[in-house]
Amino acid sequence: MDTEPNTQHTGTSASEDLPSNWGRWGEDDERGTLNLIDEEARARGAAEARTGRTVSLALPIRPTPLISGPFAPATQDASPVQQVMVYVGSPAPATADVMLVTNHHPGSTHLDALGHIVRDGRVYPGRPVDEAVTPAGARHGSTAAYAAGIATRGILLDLAADGPLPSGHAVTSGDFEAAEERQGVRLESGDALVVRCGWSATPDPDRPMPGMSLDAVRWMHQRGASLYAGDIGDAHPALDPACPLPLHHVALPMMGLPLIDAAEVDELAAVCAELGRYAFLLTVAPPRIHGLTGVPVNPLAVF
Amino acid sequence: MDTEPNTQHTGTSASEDLPSNWGRWGEDDERGTLNLIDEEARARGAAEARTGRTVSLALPIRPTPLISGPFAPATQDASPVQQVMVYVGSPAPATADVMLVTNHHPGSTHLDALGHIVRDGRVYPGRPVDEAVTPAGARHGSTAAYAAGIATRGILLDLAADGPLPSGHAVTSGDFEAAEERQGVRLESGDALVVRCGWSATPDPDRPMPGMSLDAVRWMHQRGASLYAGDIGDAHPALDPACPLPLHHVALPMMGLPLIDAAEVDELAAVCAELGRYAFLLTVAPPRIHGLTGVPVNPLAVF
Amino acid sequence: MDTEPNTQHTGTSASEDLPSNWGRWGEDDERGTLNLIDEEARARGAAEARTGRTVSLALPIRPTPLISGPFAPATQDASPVQQVMVYVGSPAPATADVMLVTNHHPGSTHLDALGHIVRDGRVYPGRPVDEAVTPAGARHGSTAAYAAGIATRGILLDLAADGPLPSGHAVTSGDFEAAEERQGVRLESGDALVVRCGWSATPDPDRPMPGMSLDAVRWMHQRGASLYAGDIGDAHPALDPACPLPLHHVALPMMGLPLIDAAEVDELAAVCAELGRYAFLLTVAPPRIHGLTGVPVNPLAVF
Amino acid sequence: MDTEPNTQHTGTSASEDLPSNWGRWGEDDERGTLNLIDEEARARGAAEARTGRTVSLALPIRPTPLISGPFAPATQDASPVQQVMVYVGSPAPATADVMLVTNHHPGSTHLDALGHIVRDGRVYPGRPVDEAVTPAGARHGSTAAYAAGIATRGILLDLAADGPLPSGHAVTSGDFEAAEERQGVRLESGDALVVRCGWSATPDPDRPMPGMSLDAVRWMHQRGASLYAGDIGDAHPALDPACPLPLHHVALPMMGLPLIDAAEVDELAAVCAELGRYAFLLTVAPPRIHGLTGVPVNPLAVF
Repeated sequence: MDTEPNTQHTGTSASEDLPSNWGRWGEDDERGTLNLIDEEARARGAAEARTGRTVSLALPIRPTPLISGPFAPATQDASPVQQVMVYVGSPAPATADVMLVTNHHPGSTHLDALGHIVRDGRVYPGRPVDEAVTPAGARHGSTAAYAAGIATRGILLDLAADGPLPSGHAVTSGDFEAAEERQGVRLESGDALVVRCGWSATPDPDRPMPGMSLDAVRWMHQRGASLYAGDIGDAHPALDPACPLPLHHVALPMMGLPLIDAAEVDELAAVCAELGRYAFLLTVAPPRIHGLTGVPVNPLAVF
Repeated sequence: MDTEPNTQHTGTSASEDLPSNWGRWGEDDERGTLNLIDEEARARGAAEARTGRTVSLALPIRPTPLISGPFAPATQDASPVQQVMVYVGSPAPATADVMLVTNHHPGSTHLDALGHIVRDGRVYPGRPVDEAVTPAGARHGSTAAYAAGIATRGILLDLAADGPLPSGHAVTSGDFEAAEERQGVRLESGDALVVRCGWSATPDPDRPMPGMSLDAVRWMHQRGASLYAGDIGDAHPALDPACPLPLHHVALPMMGLPLIDAAEVDELAAVCAELGRYAFLLTVAPPRIHGLTGVPVNPLAVF
Repeated sequence: MDTEPNTQHTGTSASEDLPSNWGRWGEDDERGTLNLIDEEARARGAAEARTGRTVSLALPIRPTPLISGPFAPATQDASPVQQVMVYVGSPAPATADVMLVTNHHPGSTHLDALGHIVRDGRVYPGRPVDEAVTPAGARHGSTAAYAAGIATRGILLDLAADGPLPSGHAVTSGDFEAAEERQGVRLESGDALVVRCGWSATPDPDRPMPGMSLDAVRWMHQRGASLYAGDIGDAHPALDPACPLPLHHVALPMMGLPLIDAAEVDELAAVCAELGRYAFLLTVAPPRIHGLTGVPVNPLAVF
Repeated sequence: MDTEPNTQHTGTSASEDLPSNWGRWGEDDERGTLNLIDEEARARGAAEARTGRTVSLALPIRPTPLISGPFAPATQDASPVQQVMVYVGSPAPATADVMLVTNHHPGSTHLDALGHIVRDGRVYPGRPVDEAVTPAGARHGSTAAYAAGIATRGILLDLAADGPLPSGHAVTSGDFEAAEERQGVRLESGDALVVRCGWSATPDPDRPMPGMSLDAVRWMHQRGASLYAGDIGDAHPALDPACPLPLHHVALPMMGLPLIDAAEVDELAAVCAELGRYAFLLTVAPPRIHGLTGVPVNPLAVF
């Protein structure tokens, strides 16, 4: 299996010179950079699990009742999860529920499948979208790739150790390498990259959030990040009009880098600082559901 | 915090002499036997993570399209998950979906919340059901207790090492202790218990599955199991009419023992046999959703 | 078929002397007062259809997108209907959707099924609720009774011709008879009763809405109303603590009177006033779905 | 308002010479041929309501429980409606439910909105689909056009009076005119056209159903049909490869003719034959929900 990253030309000028793994692991590949998690990466991860202390990287989700009115309060905002408590007889011998999950919700820590983003009518690694994703579910590049769970070494690069990043800051490879230097850690091929910018996810129209730059994404490609999670993603509005969404329009569809959107990393940063180490075993095990384009997940850092 | 298991009298004759933790960790407790996962249990778990090899304990779920007819095939059976592929514009810049999840589905590996079962109008540890569970969601004993994830040592007791258990067999403490002896392992307080009976979950009306006995549940109480997972649960039809559902009517509501229903443990057993060890780090991290009575989960054994 | 209304004793003191049709049309009856729509009532209705002008008695419903976030705006309040636009291929050859309907929603004009309300563990005409309504749907007293549609003469009694009823007013038989006198019309057995109080449905905690009294419900029983619709229903808070919800706790479950909640009758009143007649052909034809406890409906008055 | 039907050239060769109403009632029109229901058509309809006898033109829908497993039976096939019985407290003071409706389901009698079909990226009367239909619902050509209900004269043309149409038969204007002659009735401008072919909707792969021809659709255009309902629609496989779906690809998007798919007309035909008349008042009043691309409906014929 090839472990050299390419800069592949896909034939469309817009994609020229972008970091790409199309073809690197074959035409049928559905795992993308998870292919980089080899025995060494796994062993590096396991070696970090020492006391068994765990930290969740997920935002809590409080479901909205789907039903409103006489039997439940009216709802005020949209939750990623809507819940219906189910009648199982009267009096009730048990309680049960059904939930509706918006798989790509900005308030939900979720893992994007590689078929989530379409570029020029194609999804990673070059499949026509109409073939990969059908009205009856995703057939290629779905969450099936995550069915068995993911475990590797995770590295937190805390860019906000001295306070939140400035509004509108474009994170670069320089920011990453400064954090590595400061923390005494180095992201190796196959490691999961966890990034903290120190901003809460609630958007403030007057203060644009920081975001990733294409340069930062190239660095992930060069280093061999297997997975991305962060409290920071692609900025809205775009920082670079020439490449508006480097994570979602380049890293995911071109490199095949699975993205965990809307991760919660404040507690993680506090524990890393307390323990004086920024590496941990990261387990990512969403419900084993095939055919989705994304799925809620509760990543665990095990120290 | 009291770590001695009780046999509490709840005042109703039906519950007399049943193993109970009502009151053991206070009137407001929502974690039940997860309270037994102390530093030692966590450290025992971490010590088992050596190579980082992982095995999923979840059944794969293939969603059914919610929509049928001209735009998707007609469905043939009920899946725990029903999926709707969502229109995001034409042509599609991305793909997205919504899913409906039946949280307590026999074909889904899921984690029961402690408020799932009602005994005499009450849920663990004695709360009236109408106060604990509302039409707008569970307020006490919900999946909120699992928000931060669970990690502890897991022990597989493979009762089917020499072939599936006999039809209708009632698993007893003797079966557990024989397996411990055979495997050279011992379930300590705070460990998660994983049991294999060697039967597939598809019911065959002519060959009743084996199931847990009340004696087996008493043994879990005595030993201090923090969590239960298995390809075996409560038998249908009941093995003992006097106590028809020992896991769901005693262990969950009386002891506060979280149950993972419909776990897939065949691959786990094969790996344990291959490695010659039946202990591992078990991580259980369902989506961080509060207020549910159950939730799909993908437990990972890390070796 | 008996057409004499009874005041049946059901054996529980609470229900004594309440107007009741339990047993009037047999133990298996599912139509309740719709049995009163005989050939004469239908002919009276047809005779009112002269020009074919129609007025809807339904509130408009604007669905909330079920999905929110990057592909749709966040929602602000709970709609009776939540909609998902469905992916049918890219580019889209057609557009399609799925909707989730809260059948009993205060913002939706809907028709209650007779099995909707439980009195002392029973639904009309005396069936135990656990037998009538199952986790898999209503088996007795469901919307199946409305499958073929309803058409009869409708009579509007406009109690707000001179302005909205006073806050907290309890509508009585006297109000109805004064309106009949004023409008020159008389509700006959089998007619549908439509009532206007002139209040919008948005609740104002400081000004309690008017509501029906038990006396008004007795009058409906005496006169033989086959169906009830109105911009007025049971008052919250209750006007009479001894009988808090005369329509929902007496008329529906005891008399078997189908209720159309949250009807919109302002345009109807304007047209009646313009034409100088308060009788019309009323058609009520909800989607032909069996087994529901209620269903959205768009009643049409045809002049 | 122009009442002369056009044969409009839309500029694409595929649409040349097809019957079209694009522009006939303005660029913003959302009602299509419902504009043809004028005072005369309404009065013709009202005149047919004599005894008040009604017939439903809807197939019965038996919902599938959304939840399956321990609390409800497993489902076997996809219903247009999936139902969840809702927990409202224990013991239950009422029963309630939520339903999921697949708006375009072949087993559901439903009314297509004019924005349902896309031709060359546009919907009736020429709006770009991305402008008309958004991920948050249809903004143009939605079911909002049907909010106030429809009432007009309906004419049944029973093509199966002497037995079901032959397999694969393409219905033509000649068939319609022969039926008019035989029945002594004539479809006037603004009337709703109801057609019976005598086939049940369950497809049999070995015996292709009959279907409409483009010639039949041209006849509807020439005569001024305001609405179409039938137990017959577009044939699968197509009868004419040059125009595979004349109702759905021409009548709906080009003429703006609302289509009621999967109507049930056997009882209607029996009543028409019994009464010796094939005209009736037709009321069509789906739940008053805006923004949908289709909606279940229970059309009523009133005699």
